[in-house]
Amino acid sequence: MSDLPISRLLIAGAGLMGGSLGLALKKNGFASHIVGWSRREQSLQRAQTCGAIDSYETSLHKAVQAVDCVVIATPTQLTEKILIDVVRLVDSSVAVTDVASVKGNLAQALEQEFNVVPDNVVLGHPICGSEKSGVDYATADLYQQQNVVLIQKDSNSQAFSLVESMWQSVGANILPMHVEEHDRVLALTSHLPHMLAYAFMNQLIDANNSSDVFSLSGGGFRDFTRIAASDAVMWSEIVLANKVQLLAAIDDFGVHLEQLKQALEREDAEQLKALFTTARRAREGLDEKK
Amino acid sequence: MSDLPISRLLIAGAGLMGGSLGLALKKNGFASHIVGWSRREQSLQRAQTCGAIDSYETSLHKAVQAVDCVVIATPTQLTEKILIDVVRLVDSSVAVTDVASVKGNLAQALEQEFNVVPDNVVLGHPICGSEKSGVDYATADLYQQQNVVLIQKDSNSQAFSLVESMWQSVGANILPMHVEEHDRVLALTSHLPHMLAYAFMNQLIDANNSSDVFSLSGGGFRDFTRIAASDAVMWSEIVLANKVQLLAAIDDFGVHLEQLKQALEREDAEQLKALFTTARRAREGLDEKK
Repeated sequence: MSDLPISRLLIAGAGLMGGSLGLALKKNGFASHIVGWSRREQSLQRAQTCGAIDSYETSLHKAVQAVDCVVIATPTQLTEKILIDVVRLVDSSVAVTDVASVKGNLAQALEQEFNVVPDNVVLGHPICGSEKSGVDYATADLYQQQNVVLIQKDSNSQAFSLVESMWQSVGANILPMHVEEHDRVLALTSHLPHMLAYAFMNQLIDANNSSDVFSLSGGGFRDFTRIAASDAVMWSEIVLANKVQLLAAIDDFGVHLEQLKQALEREDAEQLKALFTTARRAREGLDEKK
Repeated sequence: MSDLPISRLLIAGAGLMGGSLGLALKKNGFASHIVGWSRREQSLQRAQTCGAIDSYETSLHKAVQAVDCVVIATPTQLTEKILIDVVRLVDSSVAVTDVASVKGNLAQALEQEFNVVPDNVVLGHPICGSEKSGVDYATADLYQQQNVVLIQKDSNSQAFSLVESMWQSVGANILPMHVEEHDRVLALTSHLPHMLAYAFMNQLIDANNSSDVFSLSGGGFRDFTRIAASDAVMWSEIVLANKVQLLAAIDDFGVHLEQLKQALEREDAEQLKALFTTARRAREGLDEKK
């Protein structure tokens, strides 16, 4: 057949993440054949038309036949169920991974079902995406030079190596992490800013009833609120999946906002300057790193 | 001499805003001669080198000689003082305007000094800028198709017409507003998101002591925090100048964040979806308008 690393790979879910992975794997030659599965046949047809998958199945049972690796890229809420279904359907030699934004709920569901997270399951999370969703926005370079978290176990399995090499083949950088650390950090860097941006937009919508606030929004406003254009269903599932960590992050944010508010109340220019300067330096450091 | 609308214009302050205005006015031919004034001679030299001003003075007294219009583009904290100095130095036929982000403190200072805001003073605020500051980042197209608020009085003066035509000559769109409305709306659309972004960055800096949170920040994070790279001194002056309105906006934000938090606490997926959807639609509407 061919000298590609694996012969058959299943991508379950035909959205932005799954579609982009399919395009990137085809482009870089990781699997001889990529089969797609989704609840929506229309999405599968579009994924096939754009070249993200070679063929598709609408039955998960058929879709997993003879695959070496399964990547679950369904919406967050569905991932739990599909993950358990796939683990039941495949041989323990088949590597199973996912791309969902929260990992604790998945680890817990697997432990409830199988007592442990099975050795062939490598939970994953590519730290990239877009406020756009759907396979129509898929691009082969979505993962290029992006970080992908893979959940680390005590000893790294064959499955871990395979999933790692899959992501590396599309240009991603692997960050091994533990479940709890992943969810705590992502609550801070991703889930919290989405909550803040959504709350802020809702505040402005209310204010807009009395004044045309949006005509007075500059470029900074647009950047700050861009993530509030993210898919509402997807994000309600993500925040619910990481509820405990996110609630803690919201409270912690309240502490930091209160610190600024109190400095403003007592007109403490030095304290404001110091807090703004610390924030500014850290933010500038990020641009230098990229 | 020439057929340009005015013969001599003074720009006080040689930073991003003043420098960009000078470049734009020279390019579009509004004033025969633009003179610059600043506390820092080095900035004036750079402004002259890049073509934002034709000449400069380091004495404000000399700088205002024979001008038809003065644009004050100094830092927020200094604007109060320079505005009063300029009004004292010039004839009441000379239009005086500014570009500061807060208008209430200036109106109040003028009223304290002169009992009223003098007829030749037209307070202004271009709704644009950059997280970069300094004349080195000045560009002739900064104001192109941007909104400029001009504070409206009961009857529009000659000064208002002159300042309006100056901004229109550089491609800006004029929004007449009252002082209180301007400060209330800008607290929401500009000063509040800066406070949120600074507070959020400070939170992540603290969290970063235990985990490397910044390596897990994607594109959404970068957009959301871009304004936290804004100048710390400039922003401490702005938030202090609009203290009352900003404190109200922070409290109002707390109400909207609490609404999301409570929906998350009680795992109310429908409420989260509804609130996210409202925010998302409004945010998408902004992109369509531009």
